[in-house]
Amino acid sequence: MTDYALAVDVGGTKVEAALVAADGTLAPGSRDRRPTGRASSSDELAGAVRDVVAHALAAVGPDDVVVGAGIGSAGPVDLVRGTVSPINLPSWRGFPLRDLVAELVAGVVAPDAPVTLRLDGVSLALAEHWVGATQGADNALAITVSTGVGGGLIVNGRLLSGGTGNAGHIGQIQIADRPAGQNASAATLEVIASGPNVVAWARAQGWQGERGEDLAAGYLEGDPLAVAAVRRSANAVGEAVSSVSTLLDLDVVAIGGGFSRVSADYLDLVRRTVDEAPVNHYARRVRVVRSGLSDESPLVGAAALVWQAGLLG
Amino acid sequence: MTDYALAVDVGGTKVEAALVAADGTLAPGSRDRRPTGRASSSDELAGAVRDVVAHALAAVGPDDVVVGAGIGSAGPVDLVRGTVSPINLPSWRGFPLRDLVAELVAGVVAPDAPVTLRLDGVSLALAEHWVGATQGADNALAITVSTGVGGGLIVNGRLLSGGTGNAGHIGQIQIADRPAGQNASAATLEVIASGPNVVAWARAQGWQGERGEDLAAGYLEGDPLAVAAVRRSANAVGEAVSSVSTLLDLDVVAIGGGFSRVSADYLDLVRRTVDEAPVNHYARRVRVVRSGLSDESPLVGAAALVWQAGLLG
Repeated sequence: MTDYALAVDVGGTKVEAALVAADGTLAPGSRDRRPTGRASSSDELAGAVRDVVAHALAAVGPDDVVVGAGIGSAGPVDLVRGTVSPINLPSWRGFPLRDLVAELVAGVVAPDAPVTLRLDGVSLALAEHWVGATQGADNALAITVSTGVGGGLIVNGRLLSGGTGNAGHIGQIQIADRPAGQNASAATLEVIASGPNVVAWARAQGWQGERGEDLAAGYLEGDPLAVAAVRRSANAVGEAVSSVSTLLDLDVVAIGGGFSRVSADYLDLVRRTVDEAPVNHYARRVRVVRSGLSDESPLVGAAALVWQAGLLG
Repeated sequence: MTDYALAVDVGGTKVEAALVAADGTLAPGSRDRRPTGRASSSDELAGAVRDVVAHALAAVGPDDVVVGAGIGSAGPVDLVRGTVSPINLPSWRGFPLRDLVAELVAGVVAPDAPVTLRLDGVSLALAEHWVGATQGADNALAITVSTGVGGGLIVNGRLLSGGTGNAGHIGQIQIADRPAGQNASAATLEVIASGPNVVAWARAQGWQGERGEDLAAGYLEGDPLAVAAVRRSANAVGEAVSSVSTLLDLDVVAIGGGFSRVSADYLDLVRRTVDEAPVNHYARRVRVVRSGLSDESPLVGAAALVWQAGLLG
């Protein structure tokens, strides 16, 4: 007999669920996923959640116990109401995701078992602290550089959720000159550093490639525009890490996500900026390390909301 | 008989001490100060601390009890070692301030009484939460706009100190383009928004005044350069608040310090940018309010380290 947390991850391109044991491993055969997208209706999304949860729960053995459910979701979220409004899922605006999952596990879990919702990036930061690269650190940042740039924070040894659950959105902090009268969207970390934005920038400079993979190849070959584009992304991540480390006096930052592997030295480039940019010396002490998580990390993060509940902020 | 905390504040221009009661009020006659400056030797600074502490302790009545000591200091600090290295006091680098104060109160306080050191901005954030404008908020920022720009944070309902005690340094986060190959000091909130830097910027544009008071007068008269300079400062504060609120999902920010009074509408100008700048909607919910603290605030902040010890991060 094994104790499991039901883990649910809701993202812009897929919904997943699995059973996750107390050591962070997935129960064999419990993982399931359904595609999502901007065109998905609210009922389709809810149906996808029902399907993957049903699949995961079907893997619960007769002597197993489901001790609670954790849900990581693309944001924004509203923890007070238990609702989600993922930017890339327009049909869900204020959707009561926590209530839906609570309904699906009613009768499976004990009446007072936790059903806990957090932002996906926040859950990931807890996974990194639980079984990944920031274990033991009281002040840690986890960053994902991919289609977007997301993040999550551990401070004072506990997960930081923020007033409504949206803390950790490092991709939307301003690190460059903001155009007068506009919002900061032209000056954020994400618009400079995320995969698609780096590709778009390189193309605007005259580069002929089309995708992140092309940039990776061009970087390896020493193509000047590909090199400049990758360096510009890593530099922006380093500047953001520098500012956040100045503000929060961090111990460690773990960096993951597909685009962070665009070059073998991407983390070295980030580290160079973290050495160079800070005004205050203490901000240089932050360790820059590679994420210790696998492609199961969104599910491990959701499960961490149950298994590491004592660290919830 | 009254219980008191001994409060000690060490800054670039003065050292102060006082006895502070459990309601945040100062014991009559206990407050004392000595000037400090860049030319002060280490012995002179230590002597100033000894003098103001001796004056404060002389006000302890026969039936009074000193329950502990709190120390707010200009930074950087090192909480692990209990040392301070204030930027504007060059003769103190790694000075063991906590040990000095512990020695001065030995025999006055109980052997296990707290002697607690924190950054001045961090202490101020706790004072604001204790008796000021952020009472009851679990996620709050306190900013001082003056000769420099400092800050401190409450997150998850507790004070945020960071790994070595230097969290809260909002003045040194990057909010504009960083010059290539240099550190961020040309692109930080402080270099754009602090009083002396705003005056310098206005003069570089051709403005003829010399001090913050002149800027205040020029703003009142509608002098275009004075108006532009004040707006530029408030806009930078608003951009930094926007980024930090995006990252930490704040409930409230309290703004104080002499330069924040350069114009009657300074907070309104900050608020306008906080409405305009964020990419994420939730970051607009942060309330922008005036600091609820008086000129006693550094001492109240130091005392809060004792009286609000349960909130220390």
